[in-house]
Amino acid sequence: MTLVTIDDIRAAADRIRPHVVRTPLLAARWGDDDRPLWVKPENLQPIGAFKVRGAFNAIAAMTSTGARPPAVVAYSSGNHAQAVAYAAATYGLPAHIVMPEETPSVKVRATREYGANVVLCAAGEREAEAARVVADTGGVLIPPFDHPDVIAGQGTIGLEIAADLPAVHNVLIPVSGGGLASGIGVAVRALCPAAKIFGVEPELAADTTEAMALGHRVDWSIEDRNRTIADGLRSQPSDLTFTHLQQVLDGMITVSEDEIRSAVGDLAYRAHLVSEPSGAVALAAYRQGATPPGATVVILSGGNIEPALLQQILAERSPG
Amino acid sequence: MTLVTIDDIRAAADRIRPHVVRTPLLAARWGDDDRPLWVKPENLQPIGAFKVRGAFNAIAAMTSTGARPPAVVAYSSGNHAQAVAYAAATYGLPAHIVMPEETPSVKVRATREYGANVVLCAAGEREAEAARVVADTGGVLIPPFDHPDVIAGQGTIGLEIAADLPAVHNVLIPVSGGGLASGIGVAVRALCPAAKIFGVEPELAADTTEAMALGHRVDWSIEDRNRTIADGLRSQPSDLTFTHLQQVLDGMITVSEDEIRSAVGDLAYRAHLVSEPSGAVALAAYRQGATPPGATVVILSGGNIEPALLQQILAERSPG
Repeated sequence: MTLVTIDDIRAAADRIRPHVVRTPLLAARWGDDDRPLWVKPENLQPIGAFKVRGAFNAIAAMTSTGARPPAVVAYSSGNHAQAVAYAAATYGLPAHIVMPEETPSVKVRATREYGANVVLCAAGEREAEAARVVADTGGVLIPPFDHPDVIAGQGTIGLEIAADLPAVHNVLIPVSGGGLASGIGVAVRALCPAAKIFGVEPELAADTTEAMALGHRVDWSIEDRNRTIADGLRSQPSDLTFTHLQQVLDGMITVSEDEIRSAVGDLAYRAHLVSEPSGAVALAAYRQGATPPGATVVILSGGNIEPALLQQILAERSPG
Repeated sequence: MTLVTIDDIRAAADRIRPHVVRTPLLAARWGDDDRPLWVKPENLQPIGAFKVRGAFNAIAAMTSTGARPPAVVAYSSGNHAQAVAYAAATYGLPAHIVMPEETPSVKVRATREYGANVVLCAAGEREAEAARVVADTGGVLIPPFDHPDVIAGQGTIGLEIAADLPAVHNVLIPVSGGGLASGIGVAVRALCPAAKIFGVEPELAADTTEAMALGHRVDWSIEDRNRTIADGLRSQPSDLTFTHLQQVLDGMITVSEDEIRSAVGDLAYRAHLVSEPSGAVALAAYRQGATPPGATVVILSGGNIEPALLQQILAERSPG
């Protein structure tokens, strides 16, 4: 298995530069004195999440030789769907996005607004349906994490952290399928070798925490993983991403549902940033206070929260 | 009267670079087709507002020759207080901040947390009390807008807009004392001479709109100006800022209280940014639809909103 390299990530950065936001690293004065806190606000990307980085890199790489696929295909009910739809539209490519029938209509509509053709399918049939669409259209599948170009694209966040805060001590990264943590991990390991890199999961979807402890992938039922409010963190790593995570992570941290909700409130009241639950888990892990001392970066991975849930979380929490 | 120049603003940018966030310009896909919308998120600055730019430039300029004042002094119940306290602490200078007794305790506490000495005074006595503190301490007063170094510091936002979007057609800027619009206006006029520059006020504090129409400053009672929810937009220009505004603005736009609240909701739900009411008026003006076609930048000037008000505004508005 060939792992993504820092050169792959540098090439990705060159490809995606015109299309993504070069997000600032925001100093948060309300961090602990011995662990200065920095927030990387990927909720400010187009479509509101880091996923545009991987999607743009995958499409830019496949079109860089002058070849153009007839279409791109993705399966996702979340931010990856909108990221592929948005990147495809930018490149003038048709996009077919396979979504389960139970996907909230607001997400289906958002994906269509980017010009994509949405293909609804039965729950659990997403990958098979996507394969059928690929066969029908001759399109190229862009998986949500299990692809070197996607991992390299997400890794550009690590390049930016290393440029802005070369003396970083700790980086905390949400883990779902593991593409984000794999990419950032490779970049930070290469450029800031003294830094510690932690993956973060909800307790209710902690398959990777268990897997890292056992040294091999494990399978949690989708019913179990669906219990967490962090709807972007219900996937599990592939062979490719798990191998990366084993190489680059110093540890895993799990957070409770209450800690996630509280972190969403912190980000709104103290950092003036709207986060989705999945986007707030790294801050939730930081607030447990157990990571080593030193400058700490938390990745705020996305901001697409249901309005009713945001209202509920802000109302239940007194600002601290 | 000597007006601030583009060279003053370039010098300010060099001085404040280590201390402020180089905010990105965020493309908002939900803008009108013929008026592509960009948001400049100054709520991401330390202390949550653009005011750090002017405060850092004023202190950096006064210490650049090696001279150090014994202290700095400011009068403010809002973001300027925290900006001066924060910048003074960074430079290791004592800060005395004069605040009216009715200032919400959360703001007094926040200012003290930056290490400032808060001097409470009777309403309407702020300037006199500040003069007394200056006489007692030998400190140097940093006014909230009526000073060339403060204006030049705020103007660095205009440099960044010109660098990121040189073909900008319209820039919409909140107006209170006028320092922000003066500084940005000078920079944009110099670097993007074809762009139109609009100041924005609440209808309930539209003294500058009336003054620009009449060609001279006017005085609205503080009782009138206090009616608006936009508590950062209740000041009036000085001779210095009004003269700048006459030179650089193409027009003024007023917005209703409902439009302000709606814009706060838009920024949270669509841009993943928490804005205070004052910070949302430029977007509110954009949404009236009356500005000329072309790429439009709205300045989101700050994010320090009371939690209860944010909850109320989000609850009253269905996401669009």
